[in-house]
Amino acid sequence: MRLSEFELIRKYFNTANLAFEKNEVLLGIGDDAALLNLTKEQELAISTDVLVESVHFPAGAEPAKIASRALAVNLSDLAAMGAKPLCFTLGLVLADANESWINSFSRGLAKTARQFNIALVGGDVSKGPTTIAIQVQGLTRPGKALRRDGARLGDQVYVTGDLGDGAIALASLGIPTHLGDTFLFNENQPSSACSQYLEKAYYEPEPRIEFARLCAEFINSAIDVSDGLLGDLGHICKSSGMGARINIEDIPFSDSARCCVTSENLLRAALYGGDDYELCVTVAEDKREQFLLKARESRTKITCIGEIVEGNTISFLNTAGAEIPLEQSAYEHF
Amino acid sequence: MRLSEFELIRKYFNTANLAFEKNEVLLGIGDDAALLNLTKEQELAISTDVLVESVHFPAGAEPAKIASRALAVNLSDLAAMGAKPLCFTLGLVLADANESWINSFSRGLAKTARQFNIALVGGDVSKGPTTIAIQVQGLTRPGKALRRDGARLGDQVYVTGDLGDGAIALASLGIPTHLGDTFLFNENQPSSACSQYLEKAYYEPEPRIEFARLCAEFINSAIDVSDGLLGDLGHICKSSGMGARINIEDIPFSDSARCCVTSENLLRAALYGGDDYELCVTVAEDKREQFLLKARESRTKITCIGEIVEGNTISFLNTAGAEIPLEQSAYEHF
Repeated sequence: MRLSEFELIRKYFNTANLAFEKNEVLLGIGDDAALLNLTKEQELAISTDVLVESVHFPAGAEPAKIASRALAVNLSDLAAMGAKPLCFTLGLVLADANESWINSFSRGLAKTARQFNIALVGGDVSKGPTTIAIQVQGLTRPGKALRRDGARLGDQVYVTGDLGDGAIALASLGIPTHLGDTFLFNENQPSSACSQYLEKAYYEPEPRIEFARLCAEFINSAIDVSDGLLGDLGHICKSSGMGARINIEDIPFSDSARCCVTSENLLRAALYGGDDYELCVTVAEDKREQFLLKARESRTKITCIGEIVEGNTISFLNTAGAEIPLEQSAYEHF
Repeated sequence: MRLSEFELIRKYFNTANLAFEKNEVLLGIGDDAALLNLTKEQELAISTDVLVESVHFPAGAEPAKIASRALAVNLSDLAAMGAKPLCFTLGLVLADANESWINSFSRGLAKTARQFNIALVGGDVSKGPTTIAIQVQGLTRPGKALRRDGARLGDQVYVTGDLGDGAIALASLGIPTHLGDTFLFNENQPSSACSQYLEKAYYEPEPRIEFARLCAEFINSAIDVSDGLLGDLGHICKSSGMGARINIEDIPFSDSARCCVTSENLLRAALYGGDDYELCVTVAEDKREQFLLKARESRTKITCIGEIVEGNTISFLNTAGAEIPLEQSAYEHF
């Protein structure tokens, strides 16, 4: 039997012999970042993401853009914990030490590093197929980190920004998505404005650091949408022992995404696509007003798309309130 | 002009825009690990090393061995800082999710993780050419971390274990070394005992954690020998503003290494080969006795191979005290 990525991790890596308990490790495998409780004043959040040429970015992509994206997707994990970026390390595998490539790469990396005040503190350079392995460290206040396991009955489910752009952009860049052969663009070529928008969305996802820091105390649970809403909200539900009900008409899409694919494929991109690096958070009714106020202060678009319910499945409803049968059951994901 | 790895790092990564100063970052790029001063009681050492298939290990190598080695070479960086292993993250890129491969890999990883009490706290799995990116965290007492920049005039230079095994083993495994076409094995095939010894030395290098922790207070500077003695001792010398004089007859080699290559190639393997993951440390005359006592307590073979002198070059002397001309000037390395 072929195991899914999550089953493999659970079976072979999140084990008592490998992910064993240590006093300093407050939270290990299974959230957007690990948490170490090193001091009384702050906790250290640690996360890692690897990007591989031809899998996560096209072979000819501009090195500065690859670098920005590689750091941004790691920062997104810190955002999902409500952590303040501190420092990062870089493992860089390159076919050859082409100086102009490295120059562009380091410029893109520096731009994002400065923007989010995260300093490079170490790394390793090796020869091989182009791969970028980044590990980020961030700080949170003790007990205040956002986690996946805090969703409560009646919480409203919010997402930042728009969903689906990641998968649609990946396809528009010529990289195969896992959405299959029926995930096609509309017959009309996307306008250059649409293409530009999607390319920017792909290479410069906005890690929601500021939003998460400002809103953290009003959020019950959080995750970043890197694997698609179904899978990622599924992680929140499983960790929290809850289910969710999502109104598909409320899922936010960009105009560019709407231009490129049918409404059916829009939904598939949002639910199964991933690579959006938006946050999905749940908020209790009595914190809603303060949450909305702080979200506005962070100038982040947020949309309420549903609520946390009892059970262990995610259901998707149309405007008439009828459940929509999905090509892949939500239950499969957790 | 083609830049060396170290020049590239200095020019494009260890820059004011990327490796910028932060209050919490005590030591950034340029040592075996970065140091964060998060608490009054301890500092956090962070290091990363990436292993690539067909570059750092043969394509058909046993996954458990690859995993052990990948973690061990990272632990060696913590050893070089005198740090106590805490936790690590794993970025794993695999051509496919072959369950028996992953099973073996996770067993090898768990064995080394348990041995050195370092827990896996997070990771990322991706499809692509097989690559293992590990990042380790360790703890040191404030101000007590071993560094490269502490060598003083008159310090004696010691190495743990034997040198040269790494490069000789790499060649015996059929992986090209950067020592070139003249780095040949003797005409007689190595005995199976020699082959086994070298394979073990390669896949199970012994991170000198215990040695470094016990001896730390008597050591002025330290580095792990991952790039060859010339380059690594060169880092100590450059960081410390000193030179070194090494007696080549005192460089320790294993019997297996001696069996496989000529004495000239033994020296090349030790000086330019790398992959040994032994420690090179410098010790002041008045700390020597205590250092030797603690080294014995850690059951670690150590050898005095020379001393720190004024200047900015490393010279190599034969038994008659005459300087040996090297194929590559020591000065080139720093």
